Amino acid sequence: MARALTDVDALELIRAGSTGRLGCIDNNEPYVVPINYLLDDGAIYSHSLPGKKTNAMRAHRRVCVQVDDAEGDFLGWRSAIAFGDFEEIAQEHEREVFLEKLLTRFPKLTPVESTMAHDAGAPDSIVFRIVIDRVTGVEEE
Amino acid sequence: MARALTDVDALELIRAGSTGRLGCIDNNEPYVVPINYLLDDGAIYSHSLPGKKTNAMRAHRRVCVQVDDAEGDFLGWRSAIAFGDFEEIAQEHEREVFLEKLLTRFPKLTPVESTMAHDAGAPDSIVFRIVIDRVTGVEEE
Repeated sequence: MARALTDVDALELIRAGSTGRLGCIDNNEPYVVPINYLLDDGAIYSHSLPGKKTNAMRAHRRVCVQVDDAEGDFLGWRSAIAFGDFEEIAQEHEREVFLEKLLTRFPKLTPVESTMAHDAGAPDSIVFRIVIDRVTGVEEE
Repeated sequence: MARALTDVDALELIRAGSTGRLGCIDNNEPYVVPINYLLDDGAIYSHSLPGKKTNAMRAHRRVCVQVDDAEGDFLGWRSAIAFGDFEEIAQEHEREVFLEKLLTRFPKLTPVESTMAHDAGAPDSIVFRIVIDRVTGVEEE
């Protein structure tokens, strides 16, 4: 049977994870993509090249990130979802701080992303946070 | 660099997978949950106990399923999304056929689900398909 996680346990699952699935709404249609992220002070941080995902979030700021530890089958899995509002980080110092944190946590970013992250002048990479205002989660016993 | 998958390759990734993330829209908010599924004749089949997920899909039939082979980091990953419309399978024979197929493919369903799948009278399990009308995909090279 599935049973609800407490908010504390759901947030802990999200904190412990590093890969999630970002859900956003693009022209009244759901859109889901994998992201690497880190949780910092109640917000999920990630970055992206401009594209469909960032366009969708700019147009419809309400998004979610789903994180689970399911592996192949669904015995004993746990899944959590954080809901929140998309915020683009425009302030240059803050942007650099979180880009560096993301790069430290995910050293295996693709070469193009690593190059961009180390080049403070790279204008294309969008750094953003999702300010969490609700979490839910379930576990299968 | 990320590059687009052909529709054929995106569909093949979905066909080869068994765990995806269902994206739906619940009261103008995206909602993402892991599902086990199978692809059959251009549609994604799965089942669920009644709840938030099925309520959301009944209210807003446009959904997507995202499938990837990312493992921990994002070197060499591929991700595909199938978009389509939710359809509940109400016809009893068809419902039994797909419940059996799902159970055969996923023998490690939780005990409660296995019991239900083998009990033709179990009324609670909702069997549904997502009739795919568009796929997209990307791979990281």
